[in-house]
Formats: sequence, C-alpha cells, structure tokens
Amino acid sequence: MFRSHTCGELRKSDVSKEVILAGWVQTVRKFGAITFIDLRDRYGITQLVFNEDLNPLLDQNPLGREFVLQATGFVIERSNKNLTIPTGEIEMDVRSFKILNKSAVPPFTIQDDTDGGDDLRMKYRYLDLRRNAVKKNLELRYSVNRSARNYLHEQGFMDIETPFLIKSTPEGARDFVVPSRMNGGQFYALPQSPQTFKQLLMVSGYDRYYQIVKCFRDEDLRADRQPEFTQIDCEMSFVEQEDILNMFEKLIKRIFKDVKNIDYTDAVERTTWEDAMWTFGNDKPDIRFGMKICTLKKPISVYLNKHDHAALINEAGFPVFDGAETVLAVAVPGGAAFTRKQLDELTEWVKRPQIGMKGLAYIRYNEDGSLKSSIDKFYNEDRLKLIASAVEAKQGDIILVLAGAEERTRKAMSELRLEMGEQLGLRKKDEFKLLWVLDFPLFEYAEEENRWVARHHPFTSPKPSQIQTMIENDPKISDAANYLSHPYAQIQANAYDMVLNGNEIGGGSIRIFQRALQEKMFEALGMTQEEALHKFGFLLGAFEYGAPPHGGIAFGFDRLCSILGGSESIRDFIAFPKNNSGRDVMLDAPSTIDDSQLKELSIQLQKSN
Amino acid sequence: MFRSHTCGELRKSDVSKEVILAGWVQTVRKFGAITFIDLRDRYGITQLVFNEDLNPLLDQNPLGREFVLQATGFVIERSNKNLTIPTGEIEMDVRSFKILNKSAVPPFTIQDDTDGGDDLRMKYRYLDLRRNAVKKNLELRYSVNRSARNYLHEQGFMDIETPFLIKSTPEGARDFVVPSRMNGGQFYALPQSPQTFKQLLMVSGYDRYYQIVKCFRDEDLRADRQPEFTQIDCEMSFVEQEDILNMFEKLIKRIFKDVKNIDYTDAVERTTWEDAMWTFGNDKPDIRFGMKICTLKKPISVYLNKHDHAALINEAGFPVFDGAETVLAVAVPGGAAFTRKQLDELTEWVKRPQIGMKGLAYIRYNEDGSLKSSIDKFYNEDRLKLIASAVEAKQGDIILVLAGAEERTRKAMSELRLEMGEQLGLRKKDEFKLLWVLDFPLFEYAEEENRWVARHHPFTSPKPSQIQTMIENDPKISDAANYLSHPYAQIQANAYDMVLNGNEIGGGSIRIFQRALQEKMFEALGMTQEEALHKFGFLLGAFEYGAPPHGGIAFGFDRLCSILGGSESIRDFIAFPKNNSGRDVMLDAPSTIDDSQLKELSIQLQKSN
Repeated sequence: MFRSHTCGELRKSDVSKEVILAGWVQTVRKFGAITFIDLRDRYGITQLVFNEDLNPLLDQNPLGREFVLQATGFVIERSNKNLTIPTGEIEMDVRSFKILNKSAVPPFTIQDDTDGGDDLRMKYRYLDLRRNAVKKNLELRYSVNRSARNYLHEQGFMDIETPFLIKSTPEGARDFVVPSRMNGGQFYALPQSPQTFKQLLMVSGYDRYYQIVKCFRDEDLRADRQPEFTQIDCEMSFVEQEDILNMFEKLIKRIFKDVKNIDYTDAVERTTWEDAMWTFGNDKPDIRFGMKICTLKKPISVYLNKHDHAALINEAGFPVFDGAETVLAVAVPGGAAFTRKQLDELTEWVKRPQIGMKGLAYIRYNEDGSLKSSIDKFYNEDRLKLIASAVEAKQGDIILVLAGAEERTRKAMSELRLEMGEQLGLRKKDEFKLLWVLDFPLFEYAEEENRWVARHHPFTSPKPSQIQTMIENDPKISDAANYLSHPYAQIQANAYDMVLNGNEIGGGSIRIFQRALQEKMFEALGMTQEEALHKFGFLLGAFEYGAPPHGGIAFGFDRLCSILGGSESIRDFIAFPKNNSGRDVMLDAPSTIDDSQLKELSIQLQKSN
Repeated sequence: MFRSHTCGELRKSDVSKEVILAGWVQTVRKFGAITFIDLRDRYGITQLVFNEDLNPLLDQNPLGREFVLQATGFVIERSNKNLTIPTGEIEMDVRSFKILNKSAVPPFTIQDDTDGGDDLRMKYRYLDLRRNAVKKNLELRYSVNRSARNYLHEQGFMDIETPFLIKSTPEGARDFVVPSRMNGGQFYALPQSPQTFKQLLMVSGYDRYYQIVKCFRDEDLRADRQPEFTQIDCEMSFVEQEDILNMFEKLIKRIFKDVKNIDYTDAVERTTWEDAMWTFGNDKPDIRFGMKICTLKKPISVYLNKHDHAALINEAGFPVFDGAETVLAVAVPGGAAFTRKQLDELTEWVKRPQIGMKGLAYIRYNEDGSLKSSIDKFYNEDRLKLIASAVEAKQGDIILVLAGAEERTRKAMSELRLEMGEQLGLRKKDEFKLLWVLDFPLFEYAEEENRWVARHHPFTSPKPSQIQTMIENDPKISDAANYLSHPYAQIQANAYDMVLNGNEIGGGSIRIFQRALQEKMFEALGMTQEEALHKFGFLLGAFEYGAPPHGGIAFGFDRLCSILGGSESIRDFIAFPKNNSGRDVMLDAPSTIDDSQLKELSIQLQKSN
C-alpha cells in the first residue's frame, strides 16, 4: 500500500502518529519558508505542512495542481483549525515525500464550480469525474443501487442476468443491432428491456426476479436521453396490481430512507390516468403543489365521465371561447398582484412555438373581491365570479385561461401550471411527492395506419373485467372518424406508472399470461399470425406450458438518481455519458472500423449514390 | 395475492390454518376417491389432498402435469410423513381450487434427471429452468453475486457502471460491433472488458471500483465459451501486487463461506509461472493432488533457471529419448498394479490427436522394490532406480514417461497428470484449492509477425525492477531464431492469476500508469504512434493528468459459479445461454433483419460473388 490512511480519515485522536498519505495536490500555498498543500483523495482532503527543511527539496521538485503525491510524516494539531472539513483539526508535518506522478495543467479547474464548458468536460470526463459535485452524484447512484438491491433481496427477489445479444423485434423504438460473424447476414439485437425474458422467468417459476440492467434504444436523442440507460427491472408471479403497488412503493420509500434519510411515511397518492389528464393536463403530474386545472369547456368526445362548465362561458359572444374546442383555466395564488409586464411576459411565454397558444386571457380576483379581466367586454363581474368559483380561485389570485384545440391546449395548460409552480417556488427540490397513476387506456389510436398501438407494450393485460371485451370484439376500425366509439378505445390497461415530482420514474403492468389473449393482442396491433410467431413464438410457446399470473415494473435508474440528486440532467449521474448525437467524445466513438472487420461480418457500407 | 403462503412454507405449527397456495402440478396420484397432488413453486412442494367431495369437480377439470393451480384449504397433519422435504409433515385438505392456467404436455420431464436432450432443453429453456437442478445453479449464482457485492461494499468498493457502446480497439479477441444510425458508416463496439474505463476511474480518483458486468468477445466458440459472459471486475488505486492478492483472496474465501459454508482458513498457496509450468506443465495447475512432473530432459532455451536430469537418461542408446527435445516423467501412486490392459489404454489415450504423443514409456516400481519397465532394453535396474529417485516415486508406483517436442510434450504430460488424478479420484468435487500464479512473462513471441504480443493485455506493468529494461531497449527483434535472448523475453509482468482446482478463475495486474511506459508498450506490440493515439489516445491523455499507481483483477463469474456448483459447464449456470454456434435456439437469434433497418444503418449485406 502506498498509504497508511486516506485523506479523509485522520482526526485529533491520531495526533503524533506517523502516517503515510497519497493523493492529488489540490492547492499549494507558500508562506515564506513554509508550504501548505491540500492533498485530496476520494475520502477527503488533508493539509500537509512542508517546513523549512523540506522546502528546498520542494523547490527542486515543484508540485503543481493534480500531481500525485505520497507523503510521510506525523499528525499534528492545527493551530488554525478548519472546522468545515472533518480533518480540519489536524495536519501532517511532512518528513519525506515522493512525486508518484506529475500532471499537466488541467484544461479546467477541478472544483465544484468549474470553469470548464460542457464539451470540454465531456472530452476530459476523467478529470470532470474528479470534481466533488460529480463524485457525489456517482456516490448517490451507488447508494441507490445498494439500497434497491438490499430491499429486493430481503423481499426474496433474485438477481438473474438476462442476455444482451438477443433477437431484433422492433415494436415502438428502434433496436441497436449486432452483425453476427458466425451467422453471416444475421444480426443480434441489444435489448430495449429484458421484458420477455423476465416473463419467461416467471413461466419458469422464479417468482420474484430483479436486475439492475443496461438497456438500449436507438432513438433520435432528445435532450437528456441516452442510447444506453439503466433500469431497475422487476417481475413477480401470482400477484395482482395491488400487490405490485405495495411492494414497490416500499422500495422507493426505502431508497428515500437509505439515500436521503427521508422518512416517507405518507401513503402514496393514487390517481387514474383520466383524473391526472383532467386535473393536471398530463399523466405525470407534479403534485407538490395544487393549482388544479378547471375545464371550462371540452369536446364531447374526450374524458367521457367528466363534465365541463361550458354554461359559464357560452353565449357571451366571445368568439375565441366560442370557436375553441377546449377552454382551460387555472387559479394562480397571489397572482392578482401580477404587473402588466408580468402578464405580457406570460402571454409571450404561451405563444412560444414550444407551447403554441394564440394568447392568454386572465381574470384578476382582487383582494377586495372585485374582478377585472382581459375579457370584460364579454363577461360582466357576476359571470366572472361564477367562473372564479368554478376554478376555485380565492381573492388575491389570478385566473389564467387558455383556449384552443383539446390536446394542444391541455398540454399548454399543463406546462403553464408547471411554469407558475416554478416561478412561485412551489416545486421545492427537497420535497418529494410520489404518485401512482392507474387505469391507462390499453390502446392508442394510430391515425396514419388506422390501427391500435399498445400504449405501454404488447404484453400488458387489460383490466380483468375488460378481457372479454377485448376477446369478443374485432380490433379492426371500420369507421376511422369514430374510432373512439370502438369498444377497444374504452379498454383500460392493468398498468401503473410511478411519478415523482412530475417525472415518471417507473412503470409496469400485470401481464397477459394466456396464449389466446396474447395472440389477440398481437392481432389488435396489426401483426399477422406469421409475424407474431416469427417475433414472439418463444413467448407464445411458453404460455402453453403453465404460465402463472404475473406482473412487474421497471424503474428508470438514471432518472431516479437525478431527481434524488436534485438535478435536471441524467448525464450528471452517468460516469461516461454520450452527447446528444449519441457520441462518446472522450473515446471518439462511434468510429470507423477496418475493412477486414466488415468483411468478416459479411456486411459492407452502403454506397451513397 | 393469489396465495397466502408459498409451497415451501407450511409446517406442523400451521396445522388447522386456512391457507391459499398457488403453484405448478408436479404429480397427480389417484387412490380411489382421493387424489393427491404435489404442488410445486420456487420454494418447495406441498401435498394437496382432494377428498371425495371435490373429486367429481376434479374429474370435470382434470389436472395435468405443469398446470397452474390455486387451492384453498386447511393445513392438516400427514399420517404418512415424508421427512425428506421440509413440508413433509403436513398436507392441505383442499376445499376449493381454481385452474389458473393449463399446460400442454411438456416435451421432457421437469425433474432432476430429465429425459430431454440438450437441444430440446435449450429450445424450451423456460421449461428446463423449472428443473430443480437448474434452479439450484441460478440460486447459487445469485448467492455468489450477493456475497461478492457485500464483501466489496464492506471494503469500500463502489459499483460504477461503464458504457456498453464504446470504441472498437481490437487487440487479441474480435469485437462485436454495433452500426450507428446517427453516425452513418461508423460503429460502436461492445466491451471485451471495462479495462480502460476502470483505469480511467482510478485516474479520476475513485480509488476502489467494482462491477459485475457483461463482457463480449466474438471468438470462435470452443466448448463452454459464451459470446457474452460475466466478470466480477475490480480495480484499486495506490496498491502493489501484495495488496491485491490480500484483498481478493479474502473475497473468494468470503464467497466460500457465504455460498458453500466452507471455512477456507489455509493460506492461499503461491507459485511462479515458471514453477507452475515446470512442475505441472501448465499455468493453472490443479493442486488438489501432487504427482509433480519431473523434467528428465529439456532444451537449453527454456526455463533458464531450472535444471533437468538429462544425465540419468543420456548415453543409453535409446533413440526415442536421445532424439527428443524434452523427456518428462510422473509417478502415479499405486500404479505398479496397473494391468497390461490399463497401460495399453493409457498409451492409446496419449496417442489421441488431442494429446498427440507417439507413445508412452513406463517404469513399474513394484511393491517389493524391484523395477520393471518398457525400456528395460536400454536402462538397467540401477539406472531405473536413479530415475525413480529423481521422479520421487515410491514402491508401488508406476512412472509414466513422455518424450517429444518441448511445448507439446509438457502439455501432454499436464493432461496425463490430470487424467491420472481423475482416474485415481484425486480431483474431489467438494475439495477446493486456491493458488496464485505469479511472475508471468510480460510478452509472448508471435512467430508469424516476428514481434511481441502482450501475454495479459497492453496495460499490464512490468515488474518494477524491470521497467528500466523495457524502456531502455529497442523492442525490435533482429534475430528471430534467437528471440529468447532479446531482453524483452525475460521481462516479467506484474500480474497474477487466481487458480481454483485447475481452472483460472481470475486474473489481473498492476497497471502501467505513466504515459511514456504505456507508449513504449504500444510500440513493443508493433503499434505506430498514430495507431496508439487513434485507439488509446484518451488513456494516454488521462495519464498526463496525475494518474495514480493502480491495479486490479477480474474474475470469470460464470466459471467461478460452475466450479462452486461442481459442474464442468458454465452453460448450466447461465439462465439463457447460447449454443456453440453462438445461437440462442429458444429465441432463434441471431436472425435476419428488415431491409429498412439495414438502410437506416447505412449498411448492406455483402454480396457473395
């Protein structure tokens, strides 16, 4: 060993011990004949003192930032204590030292607030990883990993490794493929998830499976997506939805406790997909704050069980509301005090292309109880009061109103609500609110192809009460304009998403476990029998030999870590991430390969003509 | 939940409880109006009794093997106890039942000794995995995984995930590559190991890293190789060889304790590579038994520090020995009693093409002290006695002698020794003997290219005392015939292999951590500077910014599990293995992909001309 202790270990009780430390030079400070060096390693920083005897040697072998140094000496008490660090009561009186390795001047400072830009730090990721901020992220990631494993182990789950070189069955996202040298012209695929394998393990009787596992999706990368990402992947047999919710909200609570020392004792709230969409405008609502959306008007065709307040705004002669499919409102607490400028800015904000609204109406509900709006011309104070009451606005609030096509308007209102929550400081980083979203539609309608697509994936079971509906009806959509009246449009999935602070951190479902229903599902998704057999014959086969009822869930490990770490970016929680073009700029990968490699793989590059 | 208890849980203390079980029908036994069913799940088997009331219902819904059944009833004490299983004192008096899923007749029996052949079991791997024997293997695998993680965690190691989509830098084995859609004409590679990443993590100061991680090698598969395999991958900073040996022999001992309840209290033996080759004929000797090889004759050029006993066999006029480069002997305990037939069979055995010897000489050292040999014509009893003494044979032994070219003969003798150990029952499955093999040559000579190749990998450091030899000498080999006299031939690696019962289960090294030495290594391996920069520029760059001394090890997780489980085949310890052609016969992968996929990836299949 090059050291007797780490740089984070020595305390006052070690005073007068002879010790050896090794680490990186964080700072060098010369005061006349004395030199102080902060020596850093993974565990902390210890101050070294080079006295007059050693200084000449130091001058011959000058130390720079990030040099790797081994020093031997005695622990002494510091006169000038630094109580902000655990080793701050002592320092090392250095008697001898050795430079283990030199360092060029780093291209950016190795400090919490670095001067390095994103590209530079990614190119020198091995230096970026030295920064305390990044190290803390990876430590948090490991503690989440450890906590999850401990909990799942205690609950009887087994980590079983599933293969990475599998079969390409693109559904949804694109597969990464791997040409096979030994089977020329054929390809493996990298798994988008171990979905079918974990189901096979349930068929095999393994009962409780988990894996913290890399998955791969060849998607056009939006900000903060990675082509390879990690899942906490779990599956259980002989369970119903309630069993899964119980098991896995406890997992997340355990992680809160182990990683953040947070006792999440509240029951985890639950909502249906329809309620989430209705109340928050999206299916992963941030429930750290209220500001529920009030639907003043909606098209008849959506949210069949919900009633709007159209009577409150109709017949006022206001063409914007009259002509809109949907009118949504939200009451912003204390917003009556917004200035004209603030409202103009908000109006510009909703008009940005990402939001895409034509404008923003508002109703000030003043502290004195009076109401004043941008639509006074059409609505007198009495009508405004009725609207305010429907929106559950209080005196001092402002009511913001958006109008337009259903989907876009609801999305815009959802974004506006989040933006207001942000501006009002209601989305606190240190507050964590979990939510189960349930009762998703099983199918979505794909307009271009006039067919159903699986909202979750093709292995998700309908709600038990709706299995018959699915089996008895022909999935074909004869009347495209009226697809919503097709019985399949009403089938709900036996699926669940876990949402944390407005982010979907996990999702899963009770699975189909009977061959006939699985075949019906493939048919519903427009697969021929041959296709279904070619792609998923092994699973259909497995279902013939005593498949048990089963279900599971997968958590996005990178995202979970980033939220727990209070960051927007998953990249900060991945040791060696790729950029938005899917490149590893440190390695310079992907890159070209030799012709001989191509030839062995029986492939060639496409000639561009 | 579909059950209140598992099938392995109920005991006499549960008698009279009302319980619900769910599982698979293992057997159905009818005795008149009573039916007994063994219900199986991951946790065990419980006997269900269907009495006269329920039997008519059973007749309407006949149960077959592997049906999934849910049964409700009362725990009762068995009159006819089965004390070989934990639940054998009770049974369930069934009051109602539900068939959760039916099963077709399985293509082979789901029992320890199955009637299914290898191909059939691989095709229906999900059924094979139900067999208790396979389940036990995967349980063992998980317990090794858990034990390793616990130990490494306690020792301060951090699990840090390294990327799977990296850069192709084929050295040694071939890379699997992954065409990039977003970077047309470019490819990622799947990692053969996280070697360079774990070294970068050391440069980043992470100090102690581990991962249980999939690795990929596109090799022609010999029996019991898999294109994807799992490593326990570890790296430490500020360590020397001794620190690594200490840390990781404790890891394996901990696994012995946790997984097999074996207290491995003996010190782990150590040998040098040269001693291992000299004494056992290979670098992963099985030291559960002795039978050390005696080198009667060797070429001057090999094992420079070792002396043979050539004087004992020379000048006897025996052309076979005189003409042979190498003559090796081994004393087989009790072998003097071998019959003529046994010796003929052994002779045939060494003449098989896999062994490739021309014949086998023997010397019986009879119980009465007399000696009788197949080479009596050339060696009188006195000379035989001297040979016997050199071989350390005892009365009652037989001495087996092989002669031929050095490398082949030593390999053959190594195999013969193992075969004799096997035949004599000296390779006991329940005995475990660890061995460190040290002081490997750093380089091997590649005859075709007349250059050095790295015996371990290009990141392995020479022994500290030999770094200067490496730096100061030109790696070029001017005199190919005399390559052994090149200074590089004598450089030893700062590397170590861990051997368990004759299998290499792990290997590693202290790494090069200085740019100049790493560049010299790349040069020694015949890389141009441009090549070195293109392939490993990131690592060379990292070494400029304060790389610490570091080293590590990687264990073959699949192999380790198979040895602990007493099996020859790693495939038995992998949930979804591939066959010897690299195919997953269950999935039918690899397979062809759509033209549209190829097009998106900017590749096309090679036209065969």
